[in-house]
Amino acid sequence: MRPEAAYHELIRRTREESLLACCAELLGWDEETYLPRGGVAHRAEQMALLAGMQHARATDPRLGELLDILEGSPLINDPSLPVAANVRELRRLYRRHTRLPRQLVEELARVTSLAHQEWVAARTRNDFARFKPWLTKIVGLKRREAESLCDGGPLYDALLEEYEPGALSDELARLFEALRTELVPLVAAVRDSRQRTEADVLRRHFPIETQQQFCAKTAAAVGFDFARGRLDTTDHPFFTAIGPDDCRLTTRYDAHDFGAGFFGMMHEVGHGLYEQGLDAEHFGTPLGCAASLGLHESQARLWENTIGRSWAFWRNVFPQAQKAFPQTLGDVALDDWHHAVNRVELAADRVHADELTYNLHILVRFELEQALLNGDLETADLGASWQASYQRYLGVTPKNDTEGCLQDGHWASGLFGYFPTYTLGNVYGAQLFATASRELDGVDEFLADGQFRPLLEWLCDRVYRQGHRYPAAHLIERVTGAPPSHHALVRALRAKYSELYGV
Amino acid sequence: MRPEAAYHELIRRTREESLLACCAELLGWDEETYLPRGGVAHRAEQMALLAGMQHARATDPRLGELLDILEGSPLINDPSLPVAANVRELRRLYRRHTRLPRQLVEELARVTSLAHQEWVAARTRNDFARFKPWLTKIVGLKRREAESLCDGGPLYDALLEEYEPGALSDELARLFEALRTELVPLVAAVRDSRQRTEADVLRRHFPIETQQQFCAKTAAAVGFDFARGRLDTTDHPFFTAIGPDDCRLTTRYDAHDFGAGFFGMMHEVGHGLYEQGLDAEHFGTPLGCAASLGLHESQARLWENTIGRSWAFWRNVFPQAQKAFPQTLGDVALDDWHHAVNRVELAADRVHADELTYNLHILVRFELEQALLNGDLETADLGASWQASYQRYLGVTPKNDTEGCLQDGHWASGLFGYFPTYTLGNVYGAQLFATASRELDGVDEFLADGQFRPLLEWLCDRVYRQGHRYPAAHLIERVTGAPPSHHALVRALRAKYSELYGV
Repeated sequence: MRPEAAYHELIRRTREESLLACCAELLGWDEETYLPRGGVAHRAEQMALLAGMQHARATDPRLGELLDILEGSPLINDPSLPVAANVRELRRLYRRHTRLPRQLVEELARVTSLAHQEWVAARTRNDFARFKPWLTKIVGLKRREAESLCDGGPLYDALLEEYEPGALSDELARLFEALRTELVPLVAAVRDSRQRTEADVLRRHFPIETQQQFCAKTAAAVGFDFARGRLDTTDHPFFTAIGPDDCRLTTRYDAHDFGAGFFGMMHEVGHGLYEQGLDAEHFGTPLGCAASLGLHESQARLWENTIGRSWAFWRNVFPQAQKAFPQTLGDVALDDWHHAVNRVELAADRVHADELTYNLHILVRFELEQALLNGDLETADLGASWQASYQRYLGVTPKNDTEGCLQDGHWASGLFGYFPTYTLGNVYGAQLFATASRELDGVDEFLADGQFRPLLEWLCDRVYRQGHRYPAAHLIERVTGAPPSHHALVRALRAKYSELYGV
Repeated sequence: MRPEAAYHELIRRTREESLLACCAELLGWDEETYLPRGGVAHRAEQMALLAGMQHARATDPRLGELLDILEGSPLINDPSLPVAANVRELRRLYRRHTRLPRQLVEELARVTSLAHQEWVAARTRNDFARFKPWLTKIVGLKRREAESLCDGGPLYDALLEEYEPGALSDELARLFEALRTELVPLVAAVRDSRQRTEADVLRRHFPIETQQQFCAKTAAAVGFDFARGRLDTTDHPFFTAIGPDDCRLTTRYDAHDFGAGFFGMMHEVGHGLYEQGLDAEHFGTPLGCAASLGLHESQARLWENTIGRSWAFWRNVFPQAQKAFPQTLGDVALDDWHHAVNRVELAADRVHADELTYNLHILVRFELEQALLNGDLETADLGASWQASYQRYLGVTPKNDTEGCLQDGHWASGLFGYFPTYTLGNVYGAQLFATASRELDGVDEFLADGQFRPLLEWLCDRVYRQGHRYPAAHLIERVTGAPPSHHALVRALRAKYSELYGV
């Protein structure tokens, strides 16, 4: 078979696999938005069936044959060409998938689909005992998954690769150590600062329907295309890409917490802009996919925090907020608002954590999920360890398990090795924004004028349209001139909080 | 292989096929409710992929081998046992699927998906010429489909079997002839009656949000289980069963037409009650599926018309409607309301036709689609024939093609042989309700008290939980003691309209 024909068939198969994956994405989205509660068990069966079918396709020996032909051909001589990048990534994925037994894949899909509902119930009732057997089952399954993949290396790295190809736990540990060293004293200084700010203005009354309209308007203003996406309301904000022109965001609203809905929306919009900026021509192949979850998260954090909590952004958007909520915000000054949306709070809640403490929340999870996976921590002891870690890194103790180890649904969904991508996202995002600020003259002025297009186009060009042409860390180095490190993030946080808190 | 093992494998495969079909159902539901408009093309690709996978499974030779083993075994000696009924139906479906060339199936899927858009455009612009080539193409494809299936029998019967297994066109022709003979004079008498009723009260202002709440409350009151289903808003009412515990209804609302939303809801609720009443234990096999579209429609028509337009029903529900719409309905008397919801109108529009004239609309389509399929009518002459038929049976002439032969999208979707199931639904529904009225003492009193459970339980027991254990006509005969006939329907219509119109 000629390599051109092999490549054609490889791409056709890969696209079909992606189409099937999109069907599963819709089933997942629907489960969190519109599925009647009685339909959960049947949905788990549907998810397991599709997961099994996807696995069968992803491990079809024909893929291996096609990859063999291509790897021995001159088509991949130039590693920067699309064909070479696609072959590299498809080989990696094929190797990974063929190591996972189909029965394990189906079992994980079924168990996590059911465990999600149990986690919701357990969190609502502060009843960790209810969730514990499910977590134990999932940890066992994930350990089997890691053992199938690890090649004698660290179990955790084998799972990490799913979300952040190329990342290693010892490098991550060094990154977290550097961040911890820098951030813990900075957090302490802010805590002891006399320039305490209040966030009371965010807790006033914001009618939910007006919030929904305001969020949709802002999402459109920064560049989210509603002809190719949606914004819905759920309990837990998330995004799903069901196809190149069908990207769905959700956020939650609280009539007495403006930030919950608005920054939830900005976060998901960041994910959405990345998805909508991918090259549709390469849909369904690595070239048309995000390079890593960390890079995906970098866009969520960049739009939520770096932009969405900047003075320049609110310079333009705050007058619109005042118009939308005249009774609520008519008497508030821009500076006070900017202080409020950046208020540092030592609290137990990750989702609403400020930029400064956020990575410490992730550090807790990074350490605990490694301990669970390696057998150094039993699920029965998770609650106590969680409390101890929060006390150690943040100086706070969650009131109960609902505010503690039940707060996130990631582990219920089988996402082990996922949490570090949030911190990688902060690191990548800060580094990219620093570069954009150097290369684009006057980013702050653009933002203050409500002109988001120059920055968005820069990101599209440098990051989004690159897809998975390069591994995420390589892409960061290509775009910013330096490998990923904590420096840009720490610099940005120091600059912002020294100004706000005089530290 | 032992027959028990063969049956086990057969059912496992059948259930998997059903699970996959459910995924396609969700994709279809989502397309009509929440899909961003940019996502349509990609959704078509997803649907095509799933359809191809379903076809491959449905025609897998392994199914034929398993059926061979079972048909030669004592397991099916007693034809009333589940195993015998499942084997009978699965053999019928396998025979049908394997006779259809895959290329024809794919061509039909592609052409009807494109033709649907052309039909929408043609209807909007009253431009039959635009739709004609597509209709010609579809008629040709459906003729090829029928030729693959008909075994020398009537072409039309081969298509009918898809929707109403066991039905024959000559029997249907006799049924329609009997209905025509009885109904045409009755319609004429009503038209000439001095007791003309007005439906103005239905055209007053009914705020849409209140309608939505009222419809959901009524759906729950008659027995639709919202823990296992939903009710959403769309342009065209429909129902989808995504699983045994996930049945989704939609209706459309018009602030100046109470009937559109309410009776649309009652119609879909009838479908929903049938689906929710199927035996979940047999999900995914014929025993857990509806026996025919005619029987499904019978439940929609029974709950929409026989119950939903009865005086007894409104005796209980009208005071609630008055409470929900106090300004709109405060001055309306129950009898006037009951007259209004049963108003007979000689019009060209099938969807909003009253109970009395509805079957004449179907008769027009039944005759014309046979003529198209058999080559007795060219698509070029369809418009003129449509007009002539409406004049002959209903005494009205549609203003143009949009109100005439372009009003329904069924033929654009390739649905030939589907229309008669509406009339079969009316026939089955009336016959079942007459039997229920004999066996359940005081059905009208139950309805007038808002007690729907006795009737629903009777229907569940006799019809819904039977699934496809018997062909629909056999089931009707078992439950009512007589084969399906026009008698009960004509009796019910005579009784209702002689009272309302004094004829």
